[in-house]
Amino acid sequence: MMKVDVLTLFPEMMDGVFRSSILGKAQEKGIVSLNAVNFREYSSSKHGTVDDTPYGGGGGMVLKPEPIFAAVEDLLTRTSAPPRVILMCPQGETFTQRKAEELAQEEHLIFICGHYEGYDERIREHLVTDELSIGDYVLTGGELPAMVAIDSIVRLLPGVLGNETSAVTDSFSTGLLEYPHYTRPAEFRGWKVPDILLSGHHANIELWRREQALKRTLERRPDLLEKIELTDQDRKVLKRLRQEKQESGR
Amino acid sequence: MMKVDVLTLFPEMMDGVFRSSILGKAQEKGIVSLNAVNFREYSSSKHGTVDDTPYGGGGGMVLKPEPIFAAVEDLLTRTSAPPRVILMCPQGETFTQRKAEELAQEEHLIFICGHYEGYDERIREHLVTDELSIGDYVLTGGELPAMVAIDSIVRLLPGVLGNETSAVTDSFSTGLLEYPHYTRPAEFRGWKVPDILLSGHHANIELWRREQALKRTLERRPDLLEKIELTDQDRKVLKRLRQEKQESGR
Repeated sequence: MMKVDVLTLFPEMMDGVFRSSILGKAQEKGIVSLNAVNFREYSSSKHGTVDDTPYGGGGGMVLKPEPIFAAVEDLLTRTSAPPRVILMCPQGETFTQRKAEELAQEEHLIFICGHYEGYDERIREHLVTDELSIGDYVLTGGELPAMVAIDSIVRLLPGVLGNETSAVTDSFSTGLLEYPHYTRPAEFRGWKVPDILLSGHHANIELWRREQALKRTLERRPDLLEKIELTDQDRKVLKRLRQEKQESGR
Repeated sequence: MMKVDVLTLFPEMMDGVFRSSILGKAQEKGIVSLNAVNFREYSSSKHGTVDDTPYGGGGGMVLKPEPIFAAVEDLLTRTSAPPRVILMCPQGETFTQRKAEELAQEEHLIFICGHYEGYDERIREHLVTDELSIGDYVLTGGELPAMVAIDSIVRLLPGVLGNETSAVTDSFSTGLLEYPHYTRPAEFRGWKVPDILLSGHHANIELWRREQALKRTLERRPDLLEKIELTDQDRKVLKRLRQEKQESGR
């Protein structure tokens, strides 16, 4: 069973997400144990202080090293596997599907989430093994990023995903954006499902879907095309799509 | 007051995050109204069906157009401002701080969150105004991405952030990664705070911090340096840092 601990001053933020959906089911099945730890409980001060003003002046507050070191070290006494200690912060490595796959191999993950405050640099230098950022935008705390990383990691664990979905056909697993999906009704407010999908000709449908996935990726995220292996057929399709685009641009 | 509606099959996932911290306070202050809507209630079938198998075959389920169109149109009857209707999906434009700033200008945002399923393409073509992805990783649903976007947007609204933090000095607002922070104790387990921060010489501290921010950005996210305006002093520092790096690499 994978153990995941989340150090946070707002453990109640995790409740709804940890109990719902995939994360709730994975815990019921005994595949993962999710645990929110309020590191204020590890403060040595009687007022539960966890932050202080920065040396050198300036605004904002900085999380002190002691409570976070104490909380992580307490978690270590209850585990045998050496954990990955992950700091969620804008300075971190950008989180990707590849990183999720790597972390899904671990037995024990500890996430450290700051909130408003910065982290004392000694936490970064001497306690954490990984610094992760989920994207180039500013958030109030590390809690949402930790939940995002945990969701993407836990759904990769064997036995978590049921028949309702599969990890294989998702975007970023194939490396292309997904082709368009359609379901009933065949006509909605005058907007029809493409004829090919109603044709019953499975080989043609597969070709159409691959072409649509290539087209969407070319239009929206051409950077992704450089990271995957394309077939000869893919390259032919892309060449044609690029020509069509150039001609329509004239 | 900004109105934010989130269409989801798992409204309980939002509870902890909407009630806590910045989002809870922003609602108490009357700056934003956050509302999770279960679009299953807009299903026309008596079993509350919201998805169906895809035309053309293949695994997985696809969200039907009717309930989502009906839910959005019901929300429109209660609002005067034309809303942004935002689909959270891996095929979307990558969410950035600039997009957060843009959306913070709106009066009404509607987020549509799928879960496991794909979306019928007609939702994308005829109902939504924006498609957003928070990063290149696979998640179980759009709920966490919507919460991430909402947190980053709401914290930019006037009156939301108090003295405990400021939007100005954050990473991605200055365009550089943050410099290292330190707080008490001045020595922790033998690890000392850099002397300069204890010197009281504010001009030197500012120079040191700017250099550290440049250094960290150069090491971890050189791509960010191309997107910001650097001063002459910045360029001098970067030149020296690059030389030092090259020399230590020999």
